[in-house]
Amino acid sequence: MISTPALVAPSAGAAFEARTVEHRDLRDDDVLIDVAFAGICHSDIHQVREEWGSAIFPMVPGHEIAGVVSAVGDGVTKYKVGDRVGVGCMVDSCGECEFCKDGEEQFCSKGAVMTYNGKGYDGEPTKGGYAQQVVVSERFAVGIPDGIELDVAAPLLCAGITVWSPLKRWGAGPGKRVAVIGLGGLGHMAVKLAVALGAEVSVLSRSDAKKEDGLALGATAYHATGDEGVLKSLKGSFDLIINTVSADLPMQTYIGLLRPLGVIANVGLPTNNYDFAPGAVVGGSRVVAGSNIGGIPATAEMLAFCAEHGIGATIEKISADEVDAAYDRVVAGDVRYRFVIDTATISA
Amino acid sequence: MISTPALVAPSAGAAFEARTVEHRDLRDDDVLIDVAFAGICHSDIHQVREEWGSAIFPMVPGHEIAGVVSAVGDGVTKYKVGDRVGVGCMVDSCGECEFCKDGEEQFCSKGAVMTYNGKGYDGEPTKGGYAQQVVVSERFAVGIPDGIELDVAAPLLCAGITVWSPLKRWGAGPGKRVAVIGLGGLGHMAVKLAVALGAEVSVLSRSDAKKEDGLALGATAYHATGDEGVLKSLKGSFDLIINTVSADLPMQTYIGLLRPLGVIANVGLPTNNYDFAPGAVVGGSRVVAGSNIGGIPATAEMLAFCAEHGIGATIEKISADEVDAAYDRVVAGDVRYRFVIDTATISA
Repeated sequence: MISTPALVAPSAGAAFEARTVEHRDLRDDDVLIDVAFAGICHSDIHQVREEWGSAIFPMVPGHEIAGVVSAVGDGVTKYKVGDRVGVGCMVDSCGECEFCKDGEEQFCSKGAVMTYNGKGYDGEPTKGGYAQQVVVSERFAVGIPDGIELDVAAPLLCAGITVWSPLKRWGAGPGKRVAVIGLGGLGHMAVKLAVALGAEVSVLSRSDAKKEDGLALGATAYHATGDEGVLKSLKGSFDLIINTVSADLPMQTYIGLLRPLGVIANVGLPTNNYDFAPGAVVGGSRVVAGSNIGGIPATAEMLAFCAEHGIGATIEKISADEVDAAYDRVVAGDVRYRFVIDTATISA
Repeated sequence: MISTPALVAPSAGAAFEARTVEHRDLRDDDVLIDVAFAGICHSDIHQVREEWGSAIFPMVPGHEIAGVVSAVGDGVTKYKVGDRVGVGCMVDSCGECEFCKDGEEQFCSKGAVMTYNGKGYDGEPTKGGYAQQVVVSERFAVGIPDGIELDVAAPLLCAGITVWSPLKRWGAGPGKRVAVIGLGGLGHMAVKLAVALGAEVSVLSRSDAKKEDGLALGATAYHATGDEGVLKSLKGSFDLIINTVSADLPMQTYIGLLRPLGVIANVGLPTNNYDFAPGAVVGGSRVVAGSNIGGIPATAEMLAFCAEHGIGATIEKISADEVDAAYDRVVAGDVRYRFVIDTATISA
């Protein structure tokens, strides 16, 4: 077994404790990764606080992992010691079904193994990136190009790919009017990526609080949707809306912001049902889509694109003892725009 | 002015009367079409019965028109006398906006002019295909290839293009599992076209009443969704569902029939709102889409495809005096699968 210091949530909602945890010895296809940085995703908080149903404790969260390969299994061909790699939301899948073969491992027919709060096909609970080391199959480690520092790369592994998938699926690029709802961890990445893809990007945020940031990220317009008349004035404006928030929005109103043939792609999970008139989509051939992370090939493509365009996440780097407080700040929307844990500060 | 016998609805819901109506003299870009056949679309009934809001009377319905060019304006270049042409739901658009330039005239920024129950840009009410002649701009006449008889071609101009658009947009073809909800005028065309496109096609119909027909049209499976357990057994089965019915369906259940990344494309207008959990689309990157007819280039493409594959609508040919009764039969779902009026039988 491999022992490594980690941040452990002992039970639902409890404060983190620095403890030593055990990883399996390397299988033939495994790589051992010395984790440098781990991003804090809002979904970590949902799971640590058991807001998404029964979770597995003790839990080591973290699925925005960036580090360096420090050992490899006997059969590993993709990486060598010293390679810079990232790990996202998944650490295993069957590799044989239609979706795995298409590089959409998140839809694996057998069920992809989540990086933490999941169980491997061997029945063992998985442990995530709030740790100094992780062990994963080389198939689920993604090379991080030299052009991206590891700290700003970490959030790309979830926040980045989560918005990259719908931007690519729905053709964000030159001549396309893209709106991003919410300027948080996902939203700020959506703006950066959509701008780099050549789209004309607008930010839709409740207030003007982040206006300066939004425009600095490359958006050409910023709309405070909480202000009277703003949503009405934007009717029929966008080819693509990336909705990154989990708040309950009036879906029919937002569909109405689309041009004919436009798409609203949702990556958040609000509490209430979507509720809209059939005519809202039928009349203008509009589309309400969902999007769930992305596969390994798309993640590699996204990282290459980020390196080429000098894109990383905008982060606040924190130490291990700041994570509990950071969680509260994430819930309050008080982070610009992603907390990243320096895992060297975990002392167990 | 050009006088022609037509079937006229004098007021909302009244029986049809055969009368002589007037068309404008040919403008430079107009063609005069001797109408041979006009299909009866369910939307004709909604409009004649004023079920879709205030309508214009007297009304000559009909937007599934097939005939032969009998005169051309001085500037017409696309057609000559004797050419076989069809007219669908539109007879004019601005020709200059982004959508017109993209061949998506139905989304014209100025507002496309509907074939009947609309007003031309000159303010004159439009008159549709339940008549022996119509006058339209050559831009909105579509050539009917020799391989298709005019009677079975007529319904392609609305029913055909309405299902062709989503089949093409969403990639129906080899390796794709396509389901068609409802085996009516639109549904039977969706089955024929999807089969010819190479998809594996299933029919989802309330009862087994049309099973033989569905399989004869080329579907490989037919499911009576009203039977207990049937919908449950189909969970996660389809890449694409074309929903042709206007009944209120449990949308979340039908989204659940999709495989990950799957699309349900709706062309009908049910009364109640769609209502489904965000997770129904987000988790599997699924898509709820609407679709509204199709543009002129797509209509031409569809007609060429039909000629190549020997496809026409399955019709019941009727005379002018049978139209009122046919309307009642359409509402009762008692037509296999499209009524087509032989306009030669209109005597005013």
